Amino acid sequence: MSQSHMQKRMNQLFSPQHVAVIGATSRTAWFKNILIYCDKIGFKGSLYPVNPNYKELEGIKTFSSITELPDNTDFAVVLLNHRLAFDAIVSLNKRGIKNIFLISSGYAEVGEEGKEKQEALKKYCKENDIYLIGPNCLGFINFPEKTSVFAGGSVDNDLIPGHIGVIGQSGAASELMVSALLKKNLGISLYVTSGNEALITIEDLVEYLIRDEATKIITGFVEGFKDIPRVKKLAALAAEKKIPIILLKIGRSSEGVKVAASHTGALTGNDLIMDGFFKQFGLIRVDSIEELANTAELFTHCSLPKGDRLGLFIFSGGLCGMYADLCAKYGIKVPPLSDKTIQGLKTILPDFAQPDNPLDITGAADRNRYHEIVDLMVKDKNLDIIAPLCMPPKDSHDVFSFGANSAFMAHIKGEKPLAPIVFKQPTDYARTYFKDHGIYCIEQPEEGFKAISHLINYGKFLRQFKSRQDK
Amino acid sequence: MSQSHMQKRMNQLFSPQHVAVIGATSRTAWFKNILIYCDKIGFKGSLYPVNPNYKELEGIKTFSSITELPDNTDFAVVLLNHRLAFDAIVSLNKRGIKNIFLISSGYAEVGEEGKEKQEALKKYCKENDIYLIGPNCLGFINFPEKTSVFAGGSVDNDLIPGHIGVIGQSGAASELMVSALLKKNLGISLYVTSGNEALITIEDLVEYLIRDEATKIITGFVEGFKDIPRVKKLAALAAEKKIPIILLKIGRSSEGVKVAASHTGALTGNDLIMDGFFKQFGLIRVDSIEELANTAELFTHCSLPKGDRLGLFIFSGGLCGMYADLCAKYGIKVPPLSDKTIQGLKTILPDFAQPDNPLDITGAADRNRYHEIVDLMVKDKNLDIIAPLCMPPKDSHDVFSFGANSAFMAHIKGEKPLAPIVFKQPTDYARTYFKDHGIYCIEQPEEGFKAISHLINYGKFLRQFKSRQDK
Repeated sequence: MSQSHMQKRMNQLFSPQHVAVIGATSRTAWFKNILIYCDKIGFKGSLYPVNPNYKELEGIKTFSSITELPDNTDFAVVLLNHRLAFDAIVSLNKRGIKNIFLISSGYAEVGEEGKEKQEALKKYCKENDIYLIGPNCLGFINFPEKTSVFAGGSVDNDLIPGHIGVIGQSGAASELMVSALLKKNLGISLYVTSGNEALITIEDLVEYLIRDEATKIITGFVEGFKDIPRVKKLAALAAEKKIPIILLKIGRSSEGVKVAASHTGALTGNDLIMDGFFKQFGLIRVDSIEELANTAELFTHCSLPKGDRLGLFIFSGGLCGMYADLCAKYGIKVPPLSDKTIQGLKTILPDFAQPDNPLDITGAADRNRYHEIVDLMVKDKNLDIIAPLCMPPKDSHDVFSFGANSAFMAHIKGEKPLAPIVFKQPTDYARTYFKDHGIYCIEQPEEGFKAISHLINYGKFLRQFKSRQDK
Repeated sequence: MSQSHMQKRMNQLFSPQHVAVIGATSRTAWFKNILIYCDKIGFKGSLYPVNPNYKELEGIKTFSSITELPDNTDFAVVLLNHRLAFDAIVSLNKRGIKNIFLISSGYAEVGEEGKEKQEALKKYCKENDIYLIGPNCLGFINFPEKTSVFAGGSVDNDLIPGHIGVIGQSGAASELMVSALLKKNLGISLYVTSGNEALITIEDLVEYLIRDEATKIITGFVEGFKDIPRVKKLAALAAEKKIPIILLKIGRSSEGVKVAASHTGALTGNDLIMDGFFKQFGLIRVDSIEELANTAELFTHCSLPKGDRLGLFIFSGGLCGMYADLCAKYGIKVPPLSDKTIQGLKTILPDFAQPDNPLDITGAADRNRYHEIVDLMVKDKNLDIIAPLCMPPKDSHDVFSFGANSAFMAHIKGEKPLAPIVFKQPTDYARTYFKDHGIYCIEQPEEGFKAISHLINYGKFLRQFKSRQDK
C-alpha cells in the first residue's frame, strides 16, 4: 500500500463525522466519557449509540443493532465484551464501516487463547481493508480537528490544540502524559492510544505523525516496538524533518519487561541494546512523565543549543550549588563566564558578589538591572544555552516578578535558547499569568536539567546526522 | 560547657520575647518580612526597631540607638551593613544582650578580608559568651513556640507546627525546603538558617535538634560540615534515638564545591568520601528539594519496613511497568506475590486480569472490593512495604476516590508501612481533602521511589546499628 494512501486512510480514521458506539451502556463509564470529551473538544458530528437494551442514552437516540445504523456512519468504536466484539466487526464491515477503534480487552495480554483471538481479528481486518486500532485501548483525541472518540476519564486541563503528537500503548499512563503536557500549556496535535496493536502499530502511528503537517514533536508511552528495522528508518526520516521523538519506554528492568508482556503483549527487548539503539538513532528516552513533559516543553520553546555549555543565574548561592551538582549528574557543562561578562557583572552586582557560573546575583542585586544581566549572559561566547531566573508573581502588584520575567522574555526569540528556572512553586495566579504571557519555565530542577541535557544531546545528534548525510 | 547548659542557652536563643531589630529600615524588605512572619506565626512578644533615621516603622515605635533599648530586650537581630555590624554587637553585649542573629553578608564568603572580619567576630562572641548565628543568614522560625525572627520572604503555605527540624546553611534554598514540607502538610519544630556559621555551627544545631524533645526528624540544606568527628558522634546519637537525618548536601561536583566556598565559605570535602560517610553513619542524602520533601513525608507517616520488598497496585499496566523500572533503578525489590494472595486476587479481579506484582487491578476491578485487595497485599508474607493506589477526588461527589482511599487508610496504622502513590495530580480540592483526612501520598514517582529506598535503607541501617550495639 502506498504511503500516501495509508496517510489518507489514517487521516480519515482520525477525522470521523458520524460515530457509532457499539455496546454503549450506562453501566460503565466508557460511553459517558466519550460524550464528555466530545463536548470538551467541541465535536460537531453525530454519535450513534448501539445497544438493543436502550431507547436512548444520555439523551441520545440509541440504535438496536448495527444493521439499523444510518448510512452516513463513517467510524465505529467497539466497547463490547471480547466474546461479542469479532461478530460486531464483521457486521460493521458488511455495512462498509472500516474505520474502527476496539476498546475492549481480553486479547493477547491474557495468554494463548487471547493471542489466537487477536490473530483472527488481525487476519480479518487485513483481508477486508479495515483500519482498526486496539484492542485494549482508550480511543483518540484529534485536537485541531475538534474530533474525539475517547473512553478514558483522566485527561485533565484545557484541551489545547497544538503541535505535539502523543502515542500511548498504555491508555491510563498516556492520559497522565497528556494531562501533564496540557498543564504546561503545551498544545497537542493528535493523541492516540494503540493498546495491543493487532493491526495498526506504534510504527504506523509514528510514521503518520512524522508525515502529518500539524505535528512538530512526537511523544509516546511505549512498552515495545514490533518492527525495529522500520523504527530505524522512521528515526532517520524524523531526523531529516527535525522532529524529535521523545519516548517513555518501559522495560528497563526484568520486572518492567514482564509487566509489558502481560499488559499489552509487547516484547520490550534487551534494555541495554534498546538504550544504545535510542542513542544511535537520536530517539530521546525518558524515565518519568514529569521528565517527558519538561523535555517536550523545552523542545517546544527552544531552538537547539550549538553546544553543551549552560549559563545559570538565580539569587541563592545554595541553589547555585544544587544546580551545579545536577548539571554534573546529567553531563551539562557549566563553564566559567568570559572576562567580558565578569567585568560587566561587577558594575551591576553589589560589591560582595563574586560573578561566577552558576551566578548568585544575591538578594541585594538591583532589580532594575536584571535585563543587563541576561544581556551579558546571552552574549557570552562561552555559553550555548542560558537558564535565567524566573519569578512566579504572587499577585497583580508583584512588579519585581514582572520585571525579572520581562528581562529574559526580551531574549526569548533570540539567538540562544533559554531554559528559565522558576525560583519557587507557582501559585494558581502565577500559572494564569505565565499562560497569558507565554512564559514557560522549569519547575522541578531534577527533571528540568535532564530535559536540558536531552535538548543539548539532540542538537549534537542532528549535527552529526547532517554531517553523515553531507558526506 | 556542659551539654545541658548549651541546650538551655539555645532554647533561650530560639524563644525570645523582646526582639531588637538593629538597622531596621523600609529601604529593604528585611524588617517588613520579619513583621510578616511574626504576624503569620502569632508572635506575642515585642519588636524594638533601632534606627536613628525613623520615629516609627510600619507603625512600631523606633529607637534611635542600642543604648535606648528597653531593659527587657532579650534578643537582637542585626541587619546593618557589615562595616557597622561589629560595633553594634559590642554595644549589644554591653547592654547584656547575648542572643544574636547576624543577617548581614560580607564575611568569609567574600574572601580574605571578610574571613578576618569573621574571625574577629567569632573571637569576640566566644570571649563574651554571646550566642550568635550567622552572618549571612535569614533568621529562624520556632513553630511550636510561635516565635520568629525571619528576614526571608519565600516561606509559603500555612506555618504548621510539628516534629521536623530544618537547618539551612543556605537561606533561600532552605526556604524552598520549608515551603515544600508545609505544602505536604508536614509540621516543623524549628527552622533555622545558619549562614557562614562564625560561631554556632550546623553540628551545634543538629545536636540541639537531636536533644530537643519536639524534633523527630532532622532535615537540612548543607554546603559543608565543620567538624567531621563530631558529625560521626551525632549520627550515632541520632541512631540511638531513631531520629533520621535527611540532608540535601551540595558539592557532588567540582562546580558545586566551588559554589559552596564562595557562598558561605564552607569546605564541602571530597564527595565520594562524603557519600561513603553518609552511608556508613546512616545519614540520608538527597539530591533535590522534591526528594527531600517526599522522604520526610514517608518518614513522618511510616513505620520502618522490615525488609526491601515492595508490593504495588494501580489500575494501569503501563504505570506498573514504569514503576517496576523505577524500583529497579533505586534498588527496591518487587517480588512475586505469594500463592495465597494470587488465589485471593483471582476471586476479586476480572477474569482477564493476571495477579502479579506490580499489580494492575485494571479499570474493570470492582471498586467495592478495593479494601480486600489492600488486605491481601498487607498480609502477604513476601512483602515488607505496600504502595497502594491513592485517588485524588474531583469533588465532593467522587465516591470512587473516597472508597479507594479509605481502603488503604484502614491499614495506615497497621503493621506494615504504606506509601500510597497518587494516580494523577491532585487539584486544590483534592489537596484540601487529603489534609482534612490525614492522607499522604507520593505525587512524583521518581522522587517517591527514591524516598521509599531511603526508608528501606534506613531501616536496614538501624537493624545493623542495633546488632553492633548488642554485641
